[in-house]
Amino acid sequence: MSKRSTDILFDVVGIGNAIVDVLAFTDEAFLTRHRLNKNTMTLVDEARAEAVYRKMGQTTECSGGSVANTLAGMASLGARTAFIGKVKNDQLGSIFIHDLHAVGVHFSTMPLESGPSTANCLVCVTPDAHRTMATFIGACSQVAEEDIDEEIIAHASVVYIEGYLWDTENAKAAIRKAITLAKETGRKIAFTLSDVFCVDRHRAEFLELIKNDIDILFANEAELKSLYQTDDVEQGLSQLKGACPVAAVTRSERGSVVLSANGVETVPTEPVARIVDTTGAGDLYASGFLFGFTRGRDLSACAALGNRCAGEIIQQLGARSMRPLKNLVA
Amino acid sequence: MSKRSTDILFDVVGIGNAIVDVLAFTDEAFLTRHRLNKNTMTLVDEARAEAVYRKMGQTTECSGGSVANTLAGMASLGARTAFIGKVKNDQLGSIFIHDLHAVGVHFSTMPLESGPSTANCLVCVTPDAHRTMATFIGACSQVAEEDIDEEIIAHASVVYIEGYLWDTENAKAAIRKAITLAKETGRKIAFTLSDVFCVDRHRAEFLELIKNDIDILFANEAELKSLYQTDDVEQGLSQLKGACPVAAVTRSERGSVVLSANGVETVPTEPVARIVDTTGAGDLYASGFLFGFTRGRDLSACAALGNRCAGEIIQQLGARSMRPLKNLVA
Repeated sequence: MSKRSTDILFDVVGIGNAIVDVLAFTDEAFLTRHRLNKNTMTLVDEARAEAVYRKMGQTTECSGGSVANTLAGMASLGARTAFIGKVKNDQLGSIFIHDLHAVGVHFSTMPLESGPSTANCLVCVTPDAHRTMATFIGACSQVAEEDIDEEIIAHASVVYIEGYLWDTENAKAAIRKAITLAKETGRKIAFTLSDVFCVDRHRAEFLELIKNDIDILFANEAELKSLYQTDDVEQGLSQLKGACPVAAVTRSERGSVVLSANGVETVPTEPVARIVDTTGAGDLYASGFLFGFTRGRDLSACAALGNRCAGEIIQQLGARSMRPLKNLVA
Repeated sequence: MSKRSTDILFDVVGIGNAIVDVLAFTDEAFLTRHRLNKNTMTLVDEARAEAVYRKMGQTTECSGGSVANTLAGMASLGARTAFIGKVKNDQLGSIFIHDLHAVGVHFSTMPLESGPSTANCLVCVTPDAHRTMATFIGACSQVAEEDIDEEIIAHASVVYIEGYLWDTENAKAAIRKAITLAKETGRKIAFTLSDVFCVDRHRAEFLELIKNDIDILFANEAELKSLYQTDDVEQGLSQLKGACPVAAVTRSERGSVVLSANGVETVPTEPVARIVDTTGAGDLYASGFLFGFTRGRDLSACAALGNRCAGEIIQQLGARSMRPLKNLVA
């Protein structure tokens, strides 16, 4: 990529875990038997992943990864995006790379040639359409500072980072480098809290990040409550007020709430015909929101598009839309 | 498995290609550009598979293979089934094995440790929900006589074989062995014509097989017309009459036709709410039909259950039902 530091080549560059999802319908008892906390993500080693997988029913495989899902959604809406993350040079890695390239996401991080396999996330979808995840982080654990392509960061309007990355030390170093670069070049930094237990593991660091570095924060109600250690969403929202320039909190069928210098606005969402699987709802909300944001729309329009994208993805299995999302852009 | 040749341990043992499907929505022009004949299966080498895959949009991966799909469907209905087919010991092979075991299909064919990768089938689903396939046959080409487990054949009521196997010489030898064994132990032999071009490639051999070996034949209208080289389904049906003891011809929304010593019966099917993807319609028809057959139901009841299973699978993406099919058994 040629060095022309003032050009914007990408609306968003995202840094995240490169994961292939393995989805199956299970009952609630399955979650209990395998000690998985409903609606959350549990990190598992290869042996435990294997044990859960062995007992899962018929599966469907589909590329995943929170930030990667968001970027694929944005590309499908018509945005220019780039992804940084680590797969291995194996069959699942090839699928992951294919699926980003297929929708036009720039992705050139070097795959691992040896070491752990491409990450997979076992997604258990219960009869209420909620998803509970067990993630074997595999090759993702090897993403490092040298994978942060300075040229890409310098040429993107927004750098988008997932909280999940905080679980590995070299990923954290990579993120720090990206944040420093983004600040030097005057780019916006967006961040998702990712998961309630992820927030629980890294609360102090996340609060520091939000205070010092983050321009746009994404969270759902549970993550917000975990962040501020409260049982009351309203209290969480009032603590979030002013914590960073823009925050968007998703509230499932109640739409989303946007907090900014202009105050707090609730943006309702349309009811959905048939909810199949909530996997990717938050990720696709971020797709719509960031698409609007990078096009200079007002924040309530960003939230409305986020709501629509989330509403779309929960009507299918998996977090990557099998149909183009362009028609959702009003 | 202990040698007790009179016991029936499996309702059906199936021999077929072990394939992972890679599904994407494409337009009709995509088929033309890649020289794929709509509604049929084209065999492609690795380079051509790669070229098509590179241009396919967002994909979903799901285990496939015609006979394997039928067995998975039967197991989901409550039958005891076994599969013989060849994967490689790679990530897609593991997914294929997992998905059969997950629904309770016995599968113990030794995977390849070297040589071609597990087969994949690129499935292009056009806006009319029809599927067009490009198959890289990979490890399947290595299935051979020694993979035919005599004990399994001897303990299954029905041996089910796919026409697709006729494309490789060693698979053909394996099938001949299975047919001989099945006849020796007095088992029924079921066969699917698989695909219109497959029939075209092997017409003479298929006609011989039907005459000498097959007890139950599955075909769709196009395959029937190709078999007897006629443009007229009715003429095809009249030629099929008496060609083998039982034949079931699927006719999409018009249900299916059963031919037997009792005459010709048309069994209508219920309309379906929303057709997403016709992949697996024929395979799941065979699941329902053979499930009924191995339980001694009359042929019209077998066809009706086949119709219901086909109607179910076309409402989702891919040929493996993500939900148990048991409730379809009246």
